[in-house]
Amino acid sequence: MGVIRLGYVHLRVTDIEEAKRHYRDTVGFRIVQDEGKTVYLKGWDEWDHHSIVLHEGGIGVHKLGFKVNRPEDIDDVEAKCRAFGVTTERMSRGDNPETSDGIRITAPSTHSIEVYHDMTLVGSEVGHLNPEVFPRTGLTGFAAPHIDHALIGTNDGYTMQRFFMDVFGFYCTERLIPDLDHPDTVLASWLSQGNRGHDIAIIQGDNWDGKLHHVAFQLQEWSDILHAAQIMSMDRVPIDVGPTQHGITRGKTIYYFDPSGNRNEVFADGYTNQRDRPTNIWTADCLGPGIDYLTRTLSETFTTIVT
Amino acid sequence: MGVIRLGYVHLRVTDIEEAKRHYRDTVGFRIVQDEGKTVYLKGWDEWDHHSIVLHEGGIGVHKLGFKVNRPEDIDDVEAKCRAFGVTTERMSRGDNPETSDGIRITAPSTHSIEVYHDMTLVGSEVGHLNPEVFPRTGLTGFAAPHIDHALIGTNDGYTMQRFFMDVFGFYCTERLIPDLDHPDTVLASWLSQGNRGHDIAIIQGDNWDGKLHHVAFQLQEWSDILHAAQIMSMDRVPIDVGPTQHGITRGKTIYYFDPSGNRNEVFADGYTNQRDRPTNIWTADCLGPGIDYLTRTLSETFTTIVT
Amino acid sequence: MGVIRLGYVHLRVTDIEEAKRHYRDTVGFRIVQDEGKTVYLKGWDEWDHHSIVLHEGGIGVHKLGFKVNRPEDIDDVEAKCRAFGVTTERMSRGDNPETSDGIRITAPSTHSIEVYHDMTLVGSEVGHLNPEVFPRTGLTGFAAPHIDHALIGTNDGYTMQRFFMDVFGFYCTERLIPDLDHPDTVLASWLSQGNRGHDIAIIQGDNWDGKLHHVAFQLQEWSDILHAAQIMSMDRVPIDVGPTQHGITRGKTIYYFDPSGNRNEVFADGYTNQRDRPTNIWTADCLGPGIDYLTRTLSETFTTIVT
Amino acid sequence: MGVIRLGYVHLRVTDIEEAKRHYRDTVGFRIVQDEGKTVYLKGWDEWDHHSIVLHEGGIGVHKLGFKVNRPEDIDDVEAKCRAFGVTTERMSRGDNPETSDGIRITAPSTHSIEVYHDMTLVGSEVGHLNPEVFPRTGLTGFAAPHIDHALIGTNDGYTMQRFFMDVFGFYCTERLIPDLDHPDTVLASWLSQGNRGHDIAIIQGDNWDGKLHHVAFQLQEWSDILHAAQIMSMDRVPIDVGPTQHGITRGKTIYYFDPSGNRNEVFADGYTNQRDRPTNIWTADCLGPGIDYLTRTLSETFTTIVT
Repeated sequence: MGVIRLGYVHLRVTDIEEAKRHYRDTVGFRIVQDEGKTVYLKGWDEWDHHSIVLHEGGIGVHKLGFKVNRPEDIDDVEAKCRAFGVTTERMSRGDNPETSDGIRITAPSTHSIEVYHDMTLVGSEVGHLNPEVFPRTGLTGFAAPHIDHALIGTNDGYTMQRFFMDVFGFYCTERLIPDLDHPDTVLASWLSQGNRGHDIAIIQGDNWDGKLHHVAFQLQEWSDILHAAQIMSMDRVPIDVGPTQHGITRGKTIYYFDPSGNRNEVFADGYTNQRDRPTNIWTADCLGPGIDYLTRTLSETFTTIVT
Repeated sequence: MGVIRLGYVHLRVTDIEEAKRHYRDTVGFRIVQDEGKTVYLKGWDEWDHHSIVLHEGGIGVHKLGFKVNRPEDIDDVEAKCRAFGVTTERMSRGDNPETSDGIRITAPSTHSIEVYHDMTLVGSEVGHLNPEVFPRTGLTGFAAPHIDHALIGTNDGYTMQRFFMDVFGFYCTERLIPDLDHPDTVLASWLSQGNRGHDIAIIQGDNWDGKLHHVAFQLQEWSDILHAAQIMSMDRVPIDVGPTQHGITRGKTIYYFDPSGNRNEVFADGYTNQRDRPTNIWTADCLGPGIDYLTRTLSETFTTIVT
Repeated sequence: MGVIRLGYVHLRVTDIEEAKRHYRDTVGFRIVQDEGKTVYLKGWDEWDHHSIVLHEGGIGVHKLGFKVNRPEDIDDVEAKCRAFGVTTERMSRGDNPETSDGIRITAPSTHSIEVYHDMTLVGSEVGHLNPEVFPRTGLTGFAAPHIDHALIGTNDGYTMQRFFMDVFGFYCTERLIPDLDHPDTVLASWLSQGNRGHDIAIIQGDNWDGKLHHVAFQLQEWSDILHAAQIMSMDRVPIDVGPTQHGITRGKTIYYFDPSGNRNEVFADGYTNQRDRPTNIWTADCLGPGIDYLTRTLSETFTTIVT
Repeated sequence: MGVIRLGYVHLRVTDIEEAKRHYRDTVGFRIVQDEGKTVYLKGWDEWDHHSIVLHEGGIGVHKLGFKVNRPEDIDDVEAKCRAFGVTTERMSRGDNPETSDGIRITAPSTHSIEVYHDMTLVGSEVGHLNPEVFPRTGLTGFAAPHIDHALIGTNDGYTMQRFFMDVFGFYCTERLIPDLDHPDTVLASWLSQGNRGHDIAIIQGDNWDGKLHHVAFQLQEWSDILHAAQIMSMDRVPIDVGPTQHGITRGKTIYYFDPSGNRNEVFADGYTNQRDRPTNIWTADCLGPGIDYLTRTLSETFTTIVT
C-alpha cells in the first residue's frame, strides 16, 4: 500500500511556552506529552498518539513523519529510496515516543523525512463506538480535529515531485509551471496518495531547501473558516492571507503565523481527488487566483516568507 | 492499485422523459448521450464520459461500474474473484459506450458489477488549465458536480463486506452490528478504498439481494445541502430524510426520491478517512443517530424502502 | 415610538432544576438571578437584566413583557388598550426584579402581557467599547445571544391580530388564511414593529386562548442551526421539526421541546422586513411549505401541541 | 412613523453599457427601465419599482431617496428640516419615474436627499401569495435581493449624525470617535431607524462632503458572501476588502469596485438592533477590527478612496 499519510510534523519554535499556549488554546490541540522544551500534541479527532511536535530552538520544520500501512512497507520505501538515490538510515522504536521503528530519509530538498508503520493508538476523543460528531465539552479555540498537509520548500521542484511520486507512490493533483512553453518545469506541485487534494506539496524557491512554507490543520467547511478567523482575531494571531478559497484544490483557507513566525493554514473541503483525475495545470501568471481565488491577487509574502 | 472508485451506476426508471427532466434540471447533470430509452449523464466536475445511466423499465439498479487504475488491475480483480468464488465474465470495449473492456461480476448479493480501466476522457467543465472553481454559466438545479457512492442491499452483509474487502481491496470505515454480543454480524458496512467515508456501502435485509438503497451525489458543504433542499422543494421532489447530518461518516445529507421512486442522496463533507483509522462500530439501537444524528430518530422508510 | 420589542417571557416549567440545566447548559443562557423556584436568565448579547424567567409549576407561558421606548409610551399604550376594550392594571417598579413600572394587560386571548419602559442595563458580555464579535470564553451549548419572538395561541386570530396592530402599532408581515375566499379569516398572523419577520405571532386553535406555541431564540445563520442541532442531539433534546427553513419569514429553524415539554425554536436570518413590504398571504393548503419549506410537509404536532 | 428606509440611490457611472452589464450580470439586479444614458434597476426581492439608478457621467452618488410611510410624513420631515436649518424644495410626482411627490433636501454634507412616500408597487419576483423562497429560474451573478445601505462622506460627522437623528428620527447604533477623551467628535456614525445595524452611515474626511464611500447590497449569510466573491473573481471585479466580518455591526462583507470605480459592498446578517441597545463606541485605534475584524488591519483604501 505504501505511504498512507503525513503522520507528524516536528516544528521548531522560538519560545516553547508561547507556542504551547498557541497550539493548545488557539488551535485547540491537546498536549499529550510535555517534556519541557519538547511538547507532543494531537487533534481531538486523531487516533494516533501525536501529530504535532514543538521543539524550542529556532524556527521552521525539524522533520516530517509519514505513516505506512504495514511494517513490510518500510522495506519497500527503503528500496525505492535506494533506487531513487537518496540516503536513508534506520530508526528504532522509541526514537520518537510511542512510535515504531522505520527509516529516516534525507530528501533531495534536505528535509528529514521519517517513515514509520505504527504509533500508539489513543483513539478519537469521541471514541469509535456509536460516536458523537464532536466532543460535547472541552474543545477550545478553533478546535482543529486533524493536521492536514504541509507545503515544503525546495531548490528543485522537478526532483522533489519525482521523489514523492517514485518513492512514496503519490500522484500529482495540481502543478504550477512557468508557462505553457515550459511544461516540465515544476515551480510547485500538489501531491496526493488518495482522495485528498494533497497530502504534501512542494514549492521551488532560491535557497528554499529545508524550508517550511506552511503546515495545515483541517477544518470542515467555510463556516469553520470564519470561526477560526474570529478566534485568530480575538487571540491576535496575524493573518497572512484570507479567509479565501484556493483555485488550486478549491479548499477554503486562511494562512496565518504562529507566535514564532511559522506559517500555518486552516484548510477546509476542496474537491474529491482520484488517481485518474486529470492534473490541473497552473501557469505562473495565474498563481494569484490559484492561491487566492477570490481576490485573484498574490500576497507578496507567499513567495518571500518561509521558515 | 486495484479498484479506485465507483465510476457509474445504471438505474432503472419507470418513465425516461420524467427521469431525464429530473436528473438534468433538478440534479443538474448533463446529458452526454441520449439513445431514447437509455440516457447517459455526467456531472459538471466529472472528467469521464458518464457516471449515471438511466434505462426505462422498472426501478432499482441495473448495474454498477468500478474503475481500476490500469488494464492489468482487471486481471488481478478477476483472480481475486475466482479465489473468492464469484463468477465473472469478460466484457468488451464498447459494451458500454465510450468504455473499455473489463469484467462483469455477479456479486454474492446478485448485483451486476462491472470493472473497467478506461472511459473516454471528457474533462471537467471548468477545464484543467487555470480552472475557475465552477462554471460561470449554465449550472442548473443543485448542480451536483459528481456522483459519490451507492448503498446496496444484500441478504448477507458479512459476505458482501468480505467481498469488497478481499476482492476490491476496500477497508471498512464504519460497521453496524446488532449489539456488542454479536460483533461479527454485519447489518451494514461502509467501505472505502482511500480517504472517503465510503465508496460503497452495503446493508442487510430480507430479500434485499440485488436491491438499491440509494445512490448519492456529492455536494461540498452544509450550505449546499440547504440549497439542494430549496431546489427540491421548488421542484416538488419528495424528501425522505433531512436535511440532517449522519453520525456515520459525519456527512451532511438529504435522502429523497427520484420520480421513479429510487432513493437518492445529496452528501457533503464528513471526516477524512485513512486506512489506519479505527473502524467505527454502531450497535443497532444507535442506528437512529447513526443515520439522522440531529433528530436521533430512524425514519421507518430507511429500513423498508429499497428498489 | 410605542412598543419596541418583546423583552421577556415568563415560562412555567415542571422541574426547575432540570429547566435550569437545559436553559443554561444547552441554550447557553446565563442565570442572572436565582430565587429557587424562580430563575432569571439572559443571553450573552442582551443588554437588559433578563429575558427568560422560569417558574416551577405547570407548563406554558405565565406572561410576556414588551418594552416601550419611553415612560410616556406606557400611557399611550394604556389609552389604546382602553380604546380597544381590553383591561389593564398598573404594575409597580420591582413587581418584576430590576424592571420599571408599567401596565399589565389581559389580552383578548387571556394572555397576561406586561408593558414596561426600563430594565437595569447590564450590557452585552462583549461590552460596548471596541467589542469582540462574541465572548472568547465561557460560551456553552448553542449559546443563543438573544430571545427572538414568541408564537402564542388564541381562539380568535382576527381580534388578536387587530390587538397587536391597533394597540402595539405592529404591522402584519405574513398571514395565514383558510383560502382566497376567506381573506379576512386570520388563522395565524406574524407581526412586526420594525425590520424583523416577527416580534410576535399568533395562531388560532380550539381552546388555544392563553396557550404557548413556542418561544424562539435567535441564531445568526444556517451553520449555527446545524451546530444547535448537534448540541441538541448530544443533550438528547427532542427535535420537533427541522433543521429546515420556513417559507413564512424565510428563517432557518429548529423546533424542539424543553424538558417540561414547552416548544422552543432556534431561528436564524430570514428576509429584512419593512412597513411598506406587501404582506405575504398563505392559504391553509400551503401551511406545509410555510412552516417547513424544505419538506413541504406539516408536522402533525404543529397544530396539536401547545402548552 | 417618519422615514422608514433608504429607497433608492442614483449613481454616476463613466460608461453606462459597462455599468449595465455589471449591475445586471454580476450583481444580478433587473433592469426595469432603460432610457439610454439613465437606467433603473431593482433586486428580485424588492417590491417597489426601482432602487438603483445609473446615470452616465462622472462617478459618485447623484442623490439618495428615503421613503416615508405616509404622505403626511413628508410635511413632518420638511418641518424638521426647517427646524434643523437645511434647505428643502418640493419635488413633484414623476420627477422620478413611478415615484410620488415629496421633498428634496440639501443635507449639511451637500448630498441631495429626496424623501418620497410612494413608488409603483411591482412586487417581489416570488410574489406575495404562498411564495417560494427565491425565484427558481432567471437569477444570475450573485443575485442580490435588495439594496441595503449607503455610507456617505462628510466634512462634519457630528452635524450629519445630528441631521439623521433629528430630522429622520434615526438612532445611532455604532459610532467612531478619535479616542475616549473626545467622545463627542464623530468620525463616523452608523444610523438605523429600526432593527438593522444601519440604514445609512456617515464618515468624516477632508473634503468628503458630497462623496460616496459605498452603497451596499444585501445578502443572507456567510456562504452567500463566498458565492458573491466567487462570482466577482470570475467576472474580474476588483475586491477592495474581504471576504471578512465587520466588528462594527458584525456583518459579513466584501467591499469591491464597480467598473466606474464606485465602491460597493455585499453585506450579510450582523446582529439585530433595537432602539434601546447601547451604542457601540469605537476608538480610532480600533478602526482596523471595526471594519475588518478578522485581520484587524485597516486597508489604506478605506480612508483614501471615495467617489
